[in-house]
Amino acid sequence: MKLWGGRFTKPTAPELEQLGSSIEFDRRLGSEDVRVNRVYARELHAVGILDAEELEAIQRGLDVVEQKLQEQPLLLDEDIHTAVERLLGEVLGEGSPTAAKLPTGRSRNDLAVTEFRAYLASAITALSEKIGTLQSTLVAKARTHKRTLLPGYTHMRRGQPVVFAQYLLAYFWSFERDKARLAAARERCRELAMGAGALAGNPFGIDRLRMAEELGLERVMPNSIDAVSSRDHILEFLSAAAILGTHFSRMSEDLILWSSAEFGFVSFDDAYATGSSIMPQKQNPDGCELTRGKTGRLIGDLVSLLTTVKGIATGYQRDLQEDKEPAFDALDTLDLLLPVMEGTIRTLTVHEDKMAEALSSDLLATDLAEYLVRKGVAFRSAHGIVGQVLAFAAEKGIGPESLPLDDLRNFSDIFDEDVATAWDFRASVERRDIEGGVSLRAIEEQLERAERAMSPDG
Amino acid sequence: MKLWGGRFTKPTAPELEQLGSSIEFDRRLGSEDVRVNRVYARELHAVGILDAEELEAIQRGLDVVEQKLQEQPLLLDEDIHTAVERLLGEVLGEGSPTAAKLPTGRSRNDLAVTEFRAYLASAITALSEKIGTLQSTLVAKARTHKRTLLPGYTHMRRGQPVVFAQYLLAYFWSFERDKARLAAARERCRELAMGAGALAGNPFGIDRLRMAEELGLERVMPNSIDAVSSRDHILEFLSAAAILGTHFSRMSEDLILWSSAEFGFVSFDDAYATGSSIMPQKQNPDGCELTRGKTGRLIGDLVSLLTTVKGIATGYQRDLQEDKEPAFDALDTLDLLLPVMEGTIRTLTVHEDKMAEALSSDLLATDLAEYLVRKGVAFRSAHGIVGQVLAFAAEKGIGPESLPLDDLRNFSDIFDEDVATAWDFRASVERRDIEGGVSLRAIEEQLERAERAMSPDG
Amino acid sequence: MKLWGGRFTKPTAPELEQLGSSIEFDRRLGSEDVRVNRVYARELHAVGILDAEELEAIQRGLDVVEQKLQEQPLLLDEDIHTAVERLLGEVLGEGSPTAAKLPTGRSRNDLAVTEFRAYLASAITALSEKIGTLQSTLVAKARTHKRTLLPGYTHMRRGQPVVFAQYLLAYFWSFERDKARLAAARERCRELAMGAGALAGNPFGIDRLRMAEELGLERVMPNSIDAVSSRDHILEFLSAAAILGTHFSRMSEDLILWSSAEFGFVSFDDAYATGSSIMPQKQNPDGCELTRGKTGRLIGDLVSLLTTVKGIATGYQRDLQEDKEPAFDALDTLDLLLPVMEGTIRTLTVHEDKMAEALSSDLLATDLAEYLVRKGVAFRSAHGIVGQVLAFAAEKGIGPESLPLDDLRNFSDIFDEDVATAWDFRASVERRDIEGGVSLRAIEEQLERAERAMSPDG
Amino acid sequence: MKLWGGRFTKPTAPELEQLGSSIEFDRRLGSEDVRVNRVYARELHAVGILDAEELEAIQRGLDVVEQKLQEQPLLLDEDIHTAVERLLGEVLGEGSPTAAKLPTGRSRNDLAVTEFRAYLASAITALSEKIGTLQSTLVAKARTHKRTLLPGYTHMRRGQPVVFAQYLLAYFWSFERDKARLAAARERCRELAMGAGALAGNPFGIDRLRMAEELGLERVMPNSIDAVSSRDHILEFLSAAAILGTHFSRMSEDLILWSSAEFGFVSFDDAYATGSSIMPQKQNPDGCELTRGKTGRLIGDLVSLLTTVKGIATGYQRDLQEDKEPAFDALDTLDLLLPVMEGTIRTLTVHEDKMAEALSSDLLATDLAEYLVRKGVAFRSAHGIVGQVLAFAAEKGIGPESLPLDDLRNFSDIFDEDVATAWDFRASVERRDIEGGVSLRAIEEQLERAERAMSPDG
Repeated sequence: MKLWGGRFTKPTAPELEQLGSSIEFDRRLGSEDVRVNRVYARELHAVGILDAEELEAIQRGLDVVEQKLQEQPLLLDEDIHTAVERLLGEVLGEGSPTAAKLPTGRSRNDLAVTEFRAYLASAITALSEKIGTLQSTLVAKARTHKRTLLPGYTHMRRGQPVVFAQYLLAYFWSFERDKARLAAARERCRELAMGAGALAGNPFGIDRLRMAEELGLERVMPNSIDAVSSRDHILEFLSAAAILGTHFSRMSEDLILWSSAEFGFVSFDDAYATGSSIMPQKQNPDGCELTRGKTGRLIGDLVSLLTTVKGIATGYQRDLQEDKEPAFDALDTLDLLLPVMEGTIRTLTVHEDKMAEALSSDLLATDLAEYLVRKGVAFRSAHGIVGQVLAFAAEKGIGPESLPLDDLRNFSDIFDEDVATAWDFRASVERRDIEGGVSLRAIEEQLERAERAMSPDG
Repeated sequence: MKLWGGRFTKPTAPELEQLGSSIEFDRRLGSEDVRVNRVYARELHAVGILDAEELEAIQRGLDVVEQKLQEQPLLLDEDIHTAVERLLGEVLGEGSPTAAKLPTGRSRNDLAVTEFRAYLASAITALSEKIGTLQSTLVAKARTHKRTLLPGYTHMRRGQPVVFAQYLLAYFWSFERDKARLAAARERCRELAMGAGALAGNPFGIDRLRMAEELGLERVMPNSIDAVSSRDHILEFLSAAAILGTHFSRMSEDLILWSSAEFGFVSFDDAYATGSSIMPQKQNPDGCELTRGKTGRLIGDLVSLLTTVKGIATGYQRDLQEDKEPAFDALDTLDLLLPVMEGTIRTLTVHEDKMAEALSSDLLATDLAEYLVRKGVAFRSAHGIVGQVLAFAAEKGIGPESLPLDDLRNFSDIFDEDVATAWDFRASVERRDIEGGVSLRAIEEQLERAERAMSPDG
Repeated sequence: MKLWGGRFTKPTAPELEQLGSSIEFDRRLGSEDVRVNRVYARELHAVGILDAEELEAIQRGLDVVEQKLQEQPLLLDEDIHTAVERLLGEVLGEGSPTAAKLPTGRSRNDLAVTEFRAYLASAITALSEKIGTLQSTLVAKARTHKRTLLPGYTHMRRGQPVVFAQYLLAYFWSFERDKARLAAARERCRELAMGAGALAGNPFGIDRLRMAEELGLERVMPNSIDAVSSRDHILEFLSAAAILGTHFSRMSEDLILWSSAEFGFVSFDDAYATGSSIMPQKQNPDGCELTRGKTGRLIGDLVSLLTTVKGIATGYQRDLQEDKEPAFDALDTLDLLLPVMEGTIRTLTVHEDKMAEALSSDLLATDLAEYLVRKGVAFRSAHGIVGQVLAFAAEKGIGPESLPLDDLRNFSDIFDEDVATAWDFRASVERRDIEGGVSLRAIEEQLERAERAMSPDG
Repeated sequence: MKLWGGRFTKPTAPELEQLGSSIEFDRRLGSEDVRVNRVYARELHAVGILDAEELEAIQRGLDVVEQKLQEQPLLLDEDIHTAVERLLGEVLGEGSPTAAKLPTGRSRNDLAVTEFRAYLASAITALSEKIGTLQSTLVAKARTHKRTLLPGYTHMRRGQPVVFAQYLLAYFWSFERDKARLAAARERCRELAMGAGALAGNPFGIDRLRMAEELGLERVMPNSIDAVSSRDHILEFLSAAAILGTHFSRMSEDLILWSSAEFGFVSFDDAYATGSSIMPQKQNPDGCELTRGKTGRLIGDLVSLLTTVKGIATGYQRDLQEDKEPAFDALDTLDLLLPVMEGTIRTLTVHEDKMAEALSSDLLATDLAEYLVRKGVAFRSAHGIVGQVLAFAAEKGIGPESLPLDDLRNFSDIFDEDVATAWDFRASVERRDIEGGVSLRAIEEQLERAERAMSPDG
């Protein structure tokens, strides 16, 4: 079924029908289509286009339509709006004038965008809740590992000792910002486009504020052309999704490395790992790898729509039909990833012994420099002295902590017996007792802050 | 000058120095570097690393350094932080221990990110102000054209009559959302990273809350690893910039088409157009074309950093040095575009006569269908009838408004003498008297809403 | 069914199975999987792993499997390779050792990449043929319009008169280069990966050269790690597809504009256009708009895989499973677009009268300058003189061709009676009688060159 | 100086001049501009626009111009073509008609594209040579390490033993394909656009074939509109550069990991590593990290131009000025990276002992399964048996190679005394004696193949 054709003298070429058909993906909007139609029917009644009986018939008809949408494959209609209009016509009886009145004063331009905004807003809410679950798991795991020492890395090199909770909480806070971005995108979706018609506005005096209210929205889009033309709310969602993806990718990369034989810091539960079809010994981190790989897809989805929207003039152009698949793909991708990442973290085994083994004394080089600083040496000089100490120790083939005091004094006579205090990993961590630092107190404070952020009033 | 090297036995290869040098672009951060250093010096004094005299010397030294940064090309230092540290050393005297104390407890990891956050926040404020200027110009122009009729387009086809103000205000509202996104990105920048050190936190007990306050920030980043590792605030800015770019591109596309010989709706002031080196007659819309073209660049900048950040593990990796050039490029690009777009709109000549000429009667086909609807015909049937009327008129080679009533009645006997009312462009527009519509009342309401949005309390 | 698990103590979490399942999309590779398995079985026979009877059983078993692949939904297997292995086992009898021998010495790493290379090479051939069909249509249309004058545009402004064939042939040549790029990508696909095993090579002495030959390939990949790790052949295809997309987008943009009421140069056959659900008069260029819009998707597909591949180390990583969907999406998208674009061009009505009407005299300003040049005026001066002439005519409100000779002489006394020759559109075009130009002779030569390029020996 | 303006009544707004100015980056094309001008002047002489004296004056004038281009900053001209035209005018004397004749019949549209094609072709040649140098270094290094055993990784897990040469040669072959793509892009550049004029072709009968020949090109672009409009040759280069970038990124990732404390397989020369401003012990792989990071930029450059070109109609649009900066940026980026990567590989220390230590017996699990296969067990069963053996050994806390034969026989009575042969890393590698495999013979063959590929006749 098609919603137009009076002036056309030929049927559409099948290849164009195929190219233009969106029912395969926009059928997801079925229940939103019904919902918006219900509210719109009430408006048509309010302005006298539908009488009470017709309104009643439509509402009951839509009940049946909603049912049928669940059951039927629908693939012969051009899009979901056409499908719903056709089904309603069938339910109310072939050629029923009542069904044919429903599209009065509206266009697929404002209808489709209204539904997709509602769909996206709900989907973002569901997505954010799943992120919240992952965050709870991170906090719980961090609570268990607030004292677990391991090397902190920069440039993929051991830098300074930290506690494992600090990594887990670093993820927590990046997801917290992701949720804020998603929430902003959702608010941008929650504006009413309906009433814009094709582009110039509805001419029958419907009440857009009331429609917004009935659809649970707080704002009416203030310009009819903007309402049918703009897609920045979807781009904003796709940006937030792509950025979220970068966080997943980085976390996955950490877990892949840490679970390697070379690091050995963590291992995955067998339920969250896979094997090899040829090499019997392998336990592969496929969940993390797929997550990392699918971030490319999230970025691709964003680029796809940015490029499409960038290439057109203002107003509705059919190019904009391409707004849905990238958004659906991003939602589906995140929907697949999130439970895997959550389960991976939840069931992760942490090998504290392996982490401890990796605490090599060079991680305390900065502490050694700070030891000198505390005794009055300027930091830049202390840094140089320690560099030479390390080079000397390396040449002797021993750890710097094993150098006798006399050797140290060759580099600076500030070194004294108490230099031994510099070679203590726990003490190093405890010295970082600052907001956001890695001392036990700081971590506990941070855990509380994280819990406050997650609480309903957070 | 380099800030490291004690353990190294060879000079760095010149090609690596070149690859890694950032001074050419990060020198923009010079005054932020000085500002953060000043605040940090006060903290070092508070915790006893610097005595009062040393603090005083550093603050006076930084006065001189700030001056020198304006004057010198600096291209021999690795980066701006190195340059400032070197200059301060020179000012305070070769080998001065005071200067060498300043870097105590901090790292380029937390220093660079702190400065760049501050820079970006200021730059976003300046950018938003320029967008505001453009918006004012759009509103002023819209006020002049709230009655100017022209065809509204969908699919690049004449759809329904609208007023020119509606297009101008459509731009206004998209920029309004862009500003909201930029403001969110700015808030994300306004968190303190300083105090994170290389990754584990500052060990000298400095007061991060006080530093934040002195730098005009409201929040301290709650995790030291996150503070040096995350770049989502920049990605959020680049996303907002790319989305803003799509709006510029679409507006430019409109103006390019409308100013063509074929449309003739507007013409550019000679100051905002250019000529051809070969075809003497040309007045080319280069400002709009360049704006449209540079949107590709804004999208490229975003992709560049998304890809870079996606590809690494958590923690600082040197890859992240690539965070600055895309952001600078986006800022510079927008800085170049904005005054051109503003001037183009401000000086635009609107040819109301040409717009009126383009009001062909087919633009009222929807009104004709609505005429039938108001007489009780179901819309879907009315749409079909009008389609046939148009096909019939086209075959006769006349406009549908010229068909005699008898001919119309062949399609529906609902048509009556008053059908003439359907063929009135002004009346069509006035019927769209709904929030966000194109009637004079609706436009005036929208203009007020726009002005409220721009007002300081908006 | 899974191909591994001996060392695992727990079933895989369902969410990880879902995330990792590729059967929904890699089932397309079914017949390639069977084909490669057939060839590989012969190799296993040649080296004595399979005896003659086992080989025979496998080949007959694969006949049945091939049949079943057409019939069954398969959605319970992890991937197509697993499905084929499972089906073969079922066909040969539960627990048949023969089926269990087939995977000897190979891995999904080399198997999947071998199949996908073969699939992609065939798909590119099919795609190129469709492009060839479009090119033939363009040439045929150009042949009809080698004398049809219209304005040539630069900056969306009328520049100089050209013939319509020149636009159609401009498309032709860009597609010709696209085909060359696609052919290069196909050649890159036609290298044998099989024999690389998981990464270290097959240990049973199979003959890779013979396998390549039997699979119709000319080259064996010379390094086992490279064979399982590299994906640049897919990136090369996706790049070629994205660039091809830009050509479709630009051609579509031309057609959309030219078919607008404002230009009126062409109109679409009703079979290649669509209508509006609200505005009965509309004939919308949806085919071109969708084509233009879907180019964003082609670019997104490329970015998606570039980002994924960029983010990993050498060797097979599971991220690489993400190589297929972007390629399938690009192939499907082009498959949908091509017949629509071909049909659109084939059935296009060209309005020569409207094109002629658009030939305004300012298009000949360059010819006027050239008139002066032919009389010895330096071009840069001639350009300036003509600019002033045009400004003067514009001020008088007449076309420059209507200026009396005396007026012209006020700008240069070189102007003479024969200046009238400058104001002839046909003559202007005929003067561009140079290879690649728009004179009739040049166009005919170009048409021949195009036909030669398309001929089998071209 | 501007090359147009006769019909303009106002000066260009300074902000538009700034937006449109390209001299800062297109000045790189200076010597190409002079070269094309020289050849074009000869054509103008051949068709009688310039007499012999004028030609001579121009050629000598261009000598001086070429000199001045080296010396002057030029920033006041709009672009390089304007600068050269202005300088030539100054050299030949204010208001010299000779200089003013040079631009006859050509446009910046065909001039700029001709020059940039020539520039890009040369730049690609230079780039390919640098890649060749890196390849030579890889081959030399591989020659030294054709027997050096290390674990081969898939999924970042130890998979099977390989030799280090195999990794180095995997890079070699990917760069070999990159060079082929770059060579194709260069050939695409080497077509003559000159003679297309603004869009309709040169009207003075110049000989394009001769021009092509004099400029060292083999082909004339066969369509004037295509010549000024198309940019796919640049997109093809940028695609090749982005794909090349993914190879650099992956190689860098390998080196970063292998040089970490956890792997310890290689270490960088101090000349190709850097230190930390805070942690004195660090030797950071900044060259590799920057290379990895800058790949994001190469992808961004490609996306930038793809998006820009996608968004416009056919014919020259000013948007296309954005074609140069992404290409220059990609060239400069690769120019910076290549010597660093070459030096890094050349000076790399390979720790054979550390590689050997990482050869854990689980790397031979596949060999153990193959042992069973050689004794007639079907591979899929052998894979399962070995999986259970490994699980059993892991539970006992010993390596599988330490299990007594009796224990093995509990899983399969095929196991016999000779099972010890499975536990030999060197033998495992030697069994992969297949084209592209890791046996010594296979590696030597591959090295020869690589050397043949690099030889001038390769």
